[in-house]
Amino acid sequence: MGKSALKVIKIGGNIIDNSEKLEQFLNNLSQLKEKFVLVHGGGKIATEMSQSMGIKAQMINGRRVTDEATLKIVTMVYAGWINKNMVAKLQAKGINAIGLTGPDGQMILSKKRNPEPINYGWVGDIVKVDGQKLKDLIDLNFFPIIAPITSNEQGDLLNTNADTMAQAIAIALSSFYDIELSYCFEKPGVLMNSQDDHSVIAKINAPYFEELKKKDIVTEGMIPKLENALKACEKGVKVVKIMHADAILEKNSGTEISL
Amino acid sequence: MGKSALKVIKIGGNIIDNSEKLEQFLNNLSQLKEKFVLVHGGGKIATEMSQSMGIKAQMINGRRVTDEATLKIVTMVYAGWINKNMVAKLQAKGINAIGLTGPDGQMILSKKRNPEPINYGWVGDIVKVDGQKLKDLIDLNFFPIIAPITSNEQGDLLNTNADTMAQAIAIALSSFYDIELSYCFEKPGVLMNSQDDHSVIAKINAPYFEELKKKDIVTEGMIPKLENALKACEKGVKVVKIMHADAILEKNSGTEISL
Repeated sequence: MGKSALKVIKIGGNIIDNSEKLEQFLNNLSQLKEKFVLVHGGGKIATEMSQSMGIKAQMINGRRVTDEATLKIVTMVYAGWINKNMVAKLQAKGINAIGLTGPDGQMILSKKRNPEPINYGWVGDIVKVDGQKLKDLIDLNFFPIIAPITSNEQGDLLNTNADTMAQAIAIALSSFYDIELSYCFEKPGVLMNSQDDHSVIAKINAPYFEELKKKDIVTEGMIPKLENALKACEKGVKVVKIMHADAILEKNSGTEISL
Repeated sequence: MGKSALKVIKIGGNIIDNSEKLEQFLNNLSQLKEKFVLVHGGGKIATEMSQSMGIKAQMINGRRVTDEATLKIVTMVYAGWINKNMVAKLQAKGINAIGLTGPDGQMILSKKRNPEPINYGWVGDIVKVDGQKLKDLIDLNFFPIIAPITSNEQGDLLNTNADTMAQAIAIALSSFYDIELSYCFEKPGVLMNSQDDHSVIAKINAPYFEELKKKDIVTEGMIPKLENALKACEKGVKVVKIMHADAILEKNSGTEISL
């Protein structure tokens, strides 16, 4: 017997920061036929918030360090303001959304990243996703809306990468569902020519990815995304899509990655 | 057949603002034998946050007006920072806590308070608590930790009184459980003599409350609390307790209110 379908959708700051785009996205989401889990990132609100409180961003190698003040702000903004707003708006559109973070039901357990060689502060790397507990909620017809905050076994909150979180959730749920994991961003997919939005590559599998890398068609930022997508497929996810956030209702949109 | 027991516990700012008291309270909570739902208020963190962002509190008749900036801050602080910290800490102590607000699963629906005669801004009055959905989570062995933010049918977030929220949740769950609703504060209970912490009144019922009012023993601030407690009992809650936060593990502590 086949498993039922479930979408795991990740959206980033470019949608969250734009209230019209977000409204359109949530409208589309409320019309999806499949059950879904939404993982959302942060956007500029946390940065603006830090600035208005006079907290300076610490950066190491272009990556933000999560000191205590920053952890507090991202928890407030991601798990509080963004998450609850999105949940309330989806409920108003008839979707039985429930907002979650890692510590809720300890659905996502992480550990603090090793401070050596670089101390990124209160940053968490995922140790385990409790797919069964998420499935229990989904079976009760809840639609989980997940903010990228996790916690460790000691009860510390940790800032966590939303892309990695979506991947780990998709893998954990693939024991129970046929998972389509969609990364939504501001481009229509992986492009053959980065200057031409009409040059979307429809399908990429592992051998074709090697070919695209050799020919320098996939660029620096896209390589880790595709590697993560293929890794998700190796670990049970049926298909990964990289697509424009506007296209979640369309069939055959974006780039489909599978083994 | 009797219903099973469930505690609904409300804690306020005096515990939340003091990290040692909070730690002690969460330790006690993790040793409770009964299942529970915790409703928490805010405390001073939201006020400090507003000040550090240069937002001035607007007050009418001694009550804070929830303008847009304040709504954002209370949502961030209550539903984000306080709620997720408490959930992570309880998980570390072995309690399967899950953080919730009104919009999550639309478990608590409210409406914006009428702006006439006084416009308190983004404040919500509870319309309906979905006891069945809360019960579904409790049956899955989740312990709901609830922040006082709700939403209306239009998807607007609303600041909501935590005492009223605890009462409405207790009433809604009384169809399924024998409910003990505990209001934890910094005094050991309702006092016969407000200067003497050893003068706790063990039990108050409706006729005795009338007597205490006539004799001016219960004071201004306590009258609405006791009225609300008796109202909860009329609507199905088995017993309401007003007690010190330190005493949640003790039998026969605080003041017991029942019809």
